Amino acid sequence: MDAIKRVLLVGGTHGNELIGIHLVRKFEHRPTLVARSSFETLTLLGNPRAIEKGSRYIDKDLNRCFDFQAIQQKQQGHLYEIQRAREISQKFGSGGQLPVDLIVDQHSTTANAGIMLILDSLDTFTLKLVAYLNAINPDIKIYSSAKSGRKRDSLRSITNYRICIEVGPLAHGTLQSELFQQTEALVYGTLDYVERYNNGSTISLEKQSLTLYNYIGMVDYPRNQIGDIQATIHPQRQYQDYKAMNPGDPMFLTFDGGTITYQGDTTVYPIFINEAAYYEKGIAMVLTEKQNYTNRHFG
Amino acid sequence: MDAIKRVLLVGGTHGNELIGIHLVRKFEHRPTLVARSSFETLTLLGNPRAIEKGSRYIDKDLNRCFDFQAIQQKQQGHLYEIQRAREISQKFGSGGQLPVDLIVDQHSTTANAGIMLILDSLDTFTLKLVAYLNAINPDIKIYSSAKSGRKRDSLRSITNYRICIEVGPLAHGTLQSELFQQTEALVYGTLDYVERYNNGSTISLEKQSLTLYNYIGMVDYPRNQIGDIQATIHPQRQYQDYKAMNPGDPMFLTFDGGTITYQGDTTVYPIFINEAAYYEKGIAMVLTEKQNYTNRHFG
Repeated sequence: MDAIKRVLLVGGTHGNELIGIHLVRKFEHRPTLVARSSFETLTLLGNPRAIEKGSRYIDKDLNRCFDFQAIQQKQQGHLYEIQRAREISQKFGSGGQLPVDLIVDQHSTTANAGIMLILDSLDTFTLKLVAYLNAINPDIKIYSSAKSGRKRDSLRSITNYRICIEVGPLAHGTLQSELFQQTEALVYGTLDYVERYNNGSTISLEKQSLTLYNYIGMVDYPRNQIGDIQATIHPQRQYQDYKAMNPGDPMFLTFDGGTITYQGDTTVYPIFINEAAYYEKGIAMVLTEKQNYTNRHFG
Repeated sequence: MDAIKRVLLVGGTHGNELIGIHLVRKFEHRPTLVARSSFETLTLLGNPRAIEKGSRYIDKDLNRCFDFQAIQQKQQGHLYEIQRAREISQKFGSGGQLPVDLIVDQHSTTANAGIMLILDSLDTFTLKLVAYLNAINPDIKIYSSAKSGRKRDSLRSITNYRICIEVGPLAHGTLQSELFQQTEALVYGTLDYVERYNNGSTISLEKQSLTLYNYIGMVDYPRNQIGDIQATIHPQRQYQDYKAMNPGDPMFLTFDGGTITYQGDTTVYPIFINEAAYYEKGIAMVLTEKQNYTNRHFG
């Protein structure tokens, strides 16, 4: 693989996820913080109109607008976020004016994500980057959405290499100092890794192992015939992201006090539990399976 | 004072505060839960279009739309929420089709409110109601917004008696089982009190005392010249609602890591710390002073 020539730091893909927005503004105000010698660092506020409004999006979730073939079939070309997606793709995508090699997209979630890195593909560059960041901060959780379709329609899908930072729990529309600082540290760590990579001095990963949470499916809330939610996340499951959920474990508590249990056959590790933006998408939690990734995978 | 003839239970004054919305739907589905013998109980979803959209409001915060004189001066009559406010006022206000004597408005906040009751006036009926609820649940916090102007422009301002339930911390757009159940219990407690009141059997409050948090002012985030926020709530202040803030105590942490301290002269008790909807209103926290209210105040 060639050297990384250009990195794009993105915030505000969702207009109400404030940490990424304010970090990008900070980087734009003090570019030396993100400048490195072997590549160019660019910044982008993904959805300016939604940022202005303080909402996730105006017409459609921008982070679901980059599968242009599907968009064309749905005849959604007039939507603001579709137009914005085209602009971003034409500027930073392959063949664009300033094609970037790596995107770092900064997000937050109301789920108890802690500090999560989302990978869409398990290529060697990305795995080594993540292993490097995980060595610096062993509390990081790593979620592979490779099987979820996100690598086709997300903003970060316009480049070959990308990483999504997802921190929580954080109410949308708010800031929190620790999560702000941890996101910032991950951005610097990523830039430092790219610098090492370009200089041929990446850390040996022979003794490194990673725990991956791999996407396997989603669970919606119990709903009535007209689609109204009928339950909350069960108190024993709320905030328990990455914790094992076994067959028979409580999953929801109905508004009348009844417990609904997990009916699957295998142990799963739910994440994105009670994410606000997923209510309308019909997702109460994302189910993952846990995988230990050892150095033999790193190639 | 005459008997209470009609009580209005409101949810969804803000379309992304889900607990009140789903409680109102539950009450509409099972009206016996809120029926009492001595008065009529009605329900209302305040802002249907915002509920549909999952946002706080469409054009303007509905809970700031009921000062019709001010609205006229601002020429905002075309806004959706102004029209909705007129409908609500004409239906449930004094002189309306179904005038109500008491409104219970159910809200949630991203601040660490716990279970808070907001009073706009310190009349004897309201104080005795609150003392009754506080005796059932001693963890309740009582905030008097009498000096904040909220009694002029809020939805609940259309009646003589009203109480606002505010629970948190809860990310807007999400549910949480404990806060759902505690809100529900407060609604039932309020209805039970009104039933006792109408029947002349209110509990003696001779030995009762209340702690009130009285509005005294607001503090905005530090901002730069173009209005962009430059700091988060300080980690030592985040989630510390109702805790004393003394002169010199940390209040904000700037994005560069600097601490900004409280410069006031007296001890205050901040609430609504880091409420998402208040960023656009220029409010980082609401300052209160603590007052012990003993039975001599109850008249």
